[in-house]
Amino acid sequence: MSSSSSTSTAASATIASINEEILSLQNRIKELKVSKQDASKEVISMKSLKEQLKTLTKDKDTTTSGPTGSGSSSSNSNFVLKTPKGTTDHKPEAALLRKKIFSTLENVFLKHDVSTIDTPVFELKDILAGKYGEDSKLIYDLSDQGGELCSLRYDLTVPFARYLAMNGISSMKRYHIGKVYRRDQPVMTKGRMREFYQCDIDIAGSCDPMVYDSEILKILCEALTALDIGQYTVKINHRKILDGIFQLAGVPADKTRSISSAVDKLDKLPWADVKKEMTVEKGLDEKVADKIGQYVGFKGPGYDVLGKLESDPELMAVPLAKQGIDDMEILFRYLTVYKVLDKMSFDMSLARGLDYYTGIIYEAIHESSAPPSKSVNPSVPPPSEITTSSGSGKSAKKSSSNDKNVNEDGIDESTVGVGSIAAGGRYDNLVGMFAEAAGNKREQVPCVGVSVGVERVYSIMESKRKNQQEKLRGKETEVFVLGLGGVQLEKRMEIATLLWDNGIKTSFSPKVNPKTPAQWKQADDDAIPYVLILAPKELAEGKVRIKAQVGKDQAGEDKGIEIDLDKVVDYLKEQLGRA
Amino acid sequence: MSSSSSTSTAASATIASINEEILSLQNRIKELKVSKQDASKEVISMKSLKEQLKTLTKDKDTTTSGPTGSGSSSSNSNFVLKTPKGTTDHKPEAALLRKKIFSTLENVFLKHDVSTIDTPVFELKDILAGKYGEDSKLIYDLSDQGGELCSLRYDLTVPFARYLAMNGISSMKRYHIGKVYRRDQPVMTKGRMREFYQCDIDIAGSCDPMVYDSEILKILCEALTALDIGQYTVKINHRKILDGIFQLAGVPADKTRSISSAVDKLDKLPWADVKKEMTVEKGLDEKVADKIGQYVGFKGPGYDVLGKLESDPELMAVPLAKQGIDDMEILFRYLTVYKVLDKMSFDMSLARGLDYYTGIIYEAIHESSAPPSKSVNPSVPPPSEITTSSGSGKSAKKSSSNDKNVNEDGIDESTVGVGSIAAGGRYDNLVGMFAEAAGNKREQVPCVGVSVGVERVYSIMESKRKNQQEKLRGKETEVFVLGLGGVQLEKRMEIATLLWDNGIKTSFSPKVNPKTPAQWKQADDDAIPYVLILAPKELAEGKVRIKAQVGKDQAGEDKGIEIDLDKVVDYLKEQLGRA
Repeated sequence: MSSSSSTSTAASATIASINEEILSLQNRIKELKVSKQDASKEVISMKSLKEQLKTLTKDKDTTTSGPTGSGSSSSNSNFVLKTPKGTTDHKPEAALLRKKIFSTLENVFLKHDVSTIDTPVFELKDILAGKYGEDSKLIYDLSDQGGELCSLRYDLTVPFARYLAMNGISSMKRYHIGKVYRRDQPVMTKGRMREFYQCDIDIAGSCDPMVYDSEILKILCEALTALDIGQYTVKINHRKILDGIFQLAGVPADKTRSISSAVDKLDKLPWADVKKEMTVEKGLDEKVADKIGQYVGFKGPGYDVLGKLESDPELMAVPLAKQGIDDMEILFRYLTVYKVLDKMSFDMSLARGLDYYTGIIYEAIHESSAPPSKSVNPSVPPPSEITTSSGSGKSAKKSSSNDKNVNEDGIDESTVGVGSIAAGGRYDNLVGMFAEAAGNKREQVPCVGVSVGVERVYSIMESKRKNQQEKLRGKETEVFVLGLGGVQLEKRMEIATLLWDNGIKTSFSPKVNPKTPAQWKQADDDAIPYVLILAPKELAEGKVRIKAQVGKDQAGEDKGIEIDLDKVVDYLKEQLGRA
Repeated sequence: MSSSSSTSTAASATIASINEEILSLQNRIKELKVSKQDASKEVISMKSLKEQLKTLTKDKDTTTSGPTGSGSSSSNSNFVLKTPKGTTDHKPEAALLRKKIFSTLENVFLKHDVSTIDTPVFELKDILAGKYGEDSKLIYDLSDQGGELCSLRYDLTVPFARYLAMNGISSMKRYHIGKVYRRDQPVMTKGRMREFYQCDIDIAGSCDPMVYDSEILKILCEALTALDIGQYTVKINHRKILDGIFQLAGVPADKTRSISSAVDKLDKLPWADVKKEMTVEKGLDEKVADKIGQYVGFKGPGYDVLGKLESDPELMAVPLAKQGIDDMEILFRYLTVYKVLDKMSFDMSLARGLDYYTGIIYEAIHESSAPPSKSVNPSVPPPSEITTSSGSGKSAKKSSSNDKNVNEDGIDESTVGVGSIAAGGRYDNLVGMFAEAAGNKREQVPCVGVSVGVERVYSIMESKRKNQQEKLRGKETEVFVLGLGGVQLEKRMEIATLLWDNGIKTSFSPKVNPKTPAQWKQADDDAIPYVLILAPKELAEGKVRIKAQVGKDQAGEDKGIEIDLDKVVDYLKEQLGRA
């Protein structure tokens, strides 16, 4: 009741607001890059802000006080008003857009017989231990304040496996949308967030071969189509085929996963670099590497690559490879019925980092990530290339030529330029590991699932929205009740109550005697589509006026239509499409 | 693909499953108590389980290994499969019911010109410091892994104030639904969770007196009515009236808040006990306490209590009290227009614990909390009682007579028996505190808000649902596609695709050749309302059968209706009310 202006007064000289500006610039740069626009002006501004920040922070001691603080209104503690490093506030427009993404995904998932669960944001430390290999160092721990040691969840897959094992559930379709936490170092990962949303759908339980696998891929395609973000391709491969190739080539068993992770880099590096990693760094015999090189360039439409593999008697003689190839044969049959086979690119260079995959693996690539031209990769033997829409040579070149900018900008090129928008696979042993480790009867619960990269999808939609100059409102208010001179606040409250009680989203000025222009401004600022005008004379006759603000006559000649007060609700409902 | 049965095999002998059973019993006991049913059988079962657990855990060393764990498939680490203390998994039915609560609340909020924000789950430690008084010890800290010191958020109010101050926003209506974290000791708080949802709606910004205050109360009443959980009363008071009474009685300024918190206990303790706390524990002069006692029993319909106060010249002469009384006069006028005044009980004993309130304060009480009979409180002077529907004497007695059981059960009687379902008030100085502490220009942003006790609402709805034997499904599947002998899996997939692509929620057996009874069982287990039956002969004629399972003829004579395949989508949409 005391404070006055409602304009933004963010003091430009404070560290907090500079940090905010940098963050917002980073997002803007990311968006520009996604839509392949020029961001050089923004990059320069950001560098200058970073310089300012350096000077300012030199004068400031940001070390914090003890746990109890210094009282509730100490005026000389110089703490910084910001969110923790790697986290951000989702403001109204961003929160609303994320909510739309979630409900779009949920509507697709719910068609597929799934339920949702909601697990705690932190787990016992032991549950996460030993699940993420080298990345375990990125796990956030809670402070040891006595009692159990806990960590913030790193993904939604391990909590799901823990949930299944703990409750002895051997069959379940579930989705889960929630935040996960990774203590990435911005210097290393260039702008990736430490708190971000994941959206996972998994099917646990035994099925006949590839039934659930094909349904997950069907769901993924339905979801990406429903999000309406443009063209995408799902790269797909099978761990058993890959491992069969390694066996055939003569990769020692203990090197399988490390050679596999080298193969996985083929979407970013040319074959020559990957081969060097295999031979020089990882000590693989050059002949073995060359044999792998014969296969890993295979990519293209499912049946084309499958035909190629099936016509290779040497490979078909490896039982593991044969199993994987048989699986793919069945899978493609089901995907044909599901009408999504055309979205797939069978890609032998896809290996996926995580250790726990045991069957098919996949990664969806958005058109904004895939280089437009056909890949020409001079070092990979040409016969293995069938057809391709997303090659590796070009993106690798792009990534290395940009390397300098990347570090300067603080932007993670790899998540913007060549990142995937969804990824997953089959993991048949994870739940059993938990059950066994807890001393329960070892029971395998085969699982297959996919994680949609919500933050990537968000960036794409946000950038698309900005390009289309579409104004996203942070709220959904439909009607503004405006009182001309002499109309009491209580009258506006009474009309608002009538509208609220009939489900119509309504606002009005919080002043007893607001000025008319200020009321119009409030309605305009919030882009409220309808203004309901109360004038003393009309009111006395039981009438009001309604003026549509959408596509309004800016000259202001449109006075709106006059309507009986007792017909207002019906009229507005009809206008709002809720008759 | 390897594992077999899909029945639950939760090994009864493990600690994990015993913990689960205890948790589920605790919930059951809580529900029974809410609905005032006998829970003695459940209490006995729980005690026996706890004994078993004691014996088992004696043999187990649950100390945990180092941060990197012992590899991904170590089979002899004996960790316990559970969620951290004070946290729980929300299983599908529970998650779905919570989602319904959230969307009900959101639908109400969105009518009132609000937007939502989404802040990080942890804040800089300094942001939370000094905001919660003694309860600061309940704040969860993140481990110091280098970099900033952070803590999990304790509520949604402080992050909102931080957000406003950081962004220089001086006017905003926002709601926020999210989890908050309090490291309560279960021995002290008897079963209260350490991770739980809060749902807050606040209006920041200046307004003419009581405009936003009355809208928040209108929103609260709309929300509680929309939740359809039964009768409720909103106890309401004004900090300035209370402080005016303390001035009049002669409470020293430095004792105001501590005497205030003693008054707040009048809903649980008789006046004699509260007076003792004031005089013996807090050193207040007995005459001063008696003067307070003259007023704090005032409660009843708004205008009744207001009339009582206004006819007291001594009190009206205290400027602070007069200001508060004038506010209430305006507030009641607006609440009359909003048609919610009848939900209010003006209650001079309501003081609310938090320090930061500066104006009106309120607390919504559900009928399940309020003792049915009129309160008789022998120690409070009778003239001050006007009318009441929720007295204090009875509940205090109930609470103390149950004290023993409470501790034994691990159930927090205070949250079940006398808890509030929503609470809030006006806080005009919190945002300014942040701006000032960060060295920004001190700007006051007056705020008023309310927090809905989602977990309490959940308990009430869950208990109501169980009493009505309403089966809540964890998923929304509408149609099961069942193939009789000879119908290929691909045919079932094809029909499912047709239904999915038309927005119909569909499932089918994941087997290539499922047995017919197993398919019926799957449809029945999931309570799927329609079964679409495919038989080879009918299919050849382009026909299928549809059988409604809701209210089905259990004798099984109903064969359903035969329908052309190309009319199936339209027929089902009509049946499902989506024509």
